Amino acid sequence: MSAQRILGIDPGLRVTGFGVIEMHGQQLRYVASGCIKSSDKDLLPARIATLFAGISEVIATYRPDQSAIEKVFVNVNPQSTLLLGQARGAAISALVHGGLSVAEYTALQVKQAVVGHGKAAKAQVQAMVVRLLGLSGAPSADAADALACAICHAHGGQGLGALATAGYRVRGGRLIG
Amino acid sequence: MSAQRILGIDPGLRVTGFGVIEMHGQQLRYVASGCIKSSDKDLLPARIATLFAGISEVIATYRPDQSAIEKVFVNVNPQSTLLLGQARGAAISALVHGGLSVAEYTALQVKQAVVGHGKAAKAQVQAMVVRLLGLSGAPSADAADALACAICHAHGGQGLGALATAGYRVRGGRLIG
Repeated sequence: MSAQRILGIDPGLRVTGFGVIEMHGQQLRYVASGCIKSSDKDLLPARIATLFAGISEVIATYRPDQSAIEKVFVNVNPQSTLLLGQARGAAISALVHGGLSVAEYTALQVKQAVVGHGKAAKAQVQAMVVRLLGLSGAPSADAADALACAICHAHGGQGLGALATAGYRVRGGRLIG
Repeated sequence: MSAQRILGIDPGLRVTGFGVIEMHGQQLRYVASGCIKSSDKDLLPARIATLFAGISEVIATYRPDQSAIEKVFVNVNPQSTLLLGQARGAAISALVHGGLSVAEYTALQVKQAVVGHGKAAKAQVQAMVVRLLGLSGAPSADAADALACAICHAHGGQGLGALATAGYRVRGGRLIG
């Protein structure tokens, strides 16, 4: 099987994280990651335009084969829920417009896949992303979440069981060694 | 000033209404209207893809110069708010990707512009859209809302005052004659 590139997206109106990884069989390789930001001083259509154009540019640059995006949850503030929903709708639009399949994973699934349990803190997700991809430095929290979502997809949305099968050593929900 | 085509959008995940009108100075002319529907049996990315492609097709077919979209409100059900937000984000993405400016109006502004008061029922909006555009039959409620949004934009987001200036006879918040 040839290498597959996966684009992971952690959607948000203020900051959308993206991460691109390459899967050679069971081996994962880091390709790129970063953030697309929009200012809350801009009107919503301009912010949606920034987000859509940003993701489209990532797709044009790194040419992923598949994509995965985090499911989002309703916020205590309904207005925030509405804004987050619009950002996620724009992100999915850019992915489908770019011809990509779009898989969806909850934050719980992503954390279970990468850290081994669903209540992991942001810092743990970052640390595991660094380890799994052999990075020399930690990506920003949003980029790390996007990379984690791509990793989750690479392992079929499964947890560390899949990683263990892939040759990683796992004990008590943690990678060891 | 040459004729300007305005695309109005009433966003929704299940049904998104669209309406295209042409503005020759103060004269309004109906061009087209309809609905883009998606099935709740499909996964969200497929529904977003349908909505994005549908609006893109409307833009390619009718080549509007400007667009206007209804602002949406938070629902009592937060999950519905999230879905509606994602539909609206996809709609705005299609509009900005199509190179259109996007104006936003609340349902209150739209109703005030078309019926003359903000508490108008759906049937009143439909009836006024039929009258203002000289239609031979009533469009569906979603298409009528989209046409109403386009009419609101044509009159600069203003109420019946603008219509009166344009030669319509208005009394007590209603068009007469």
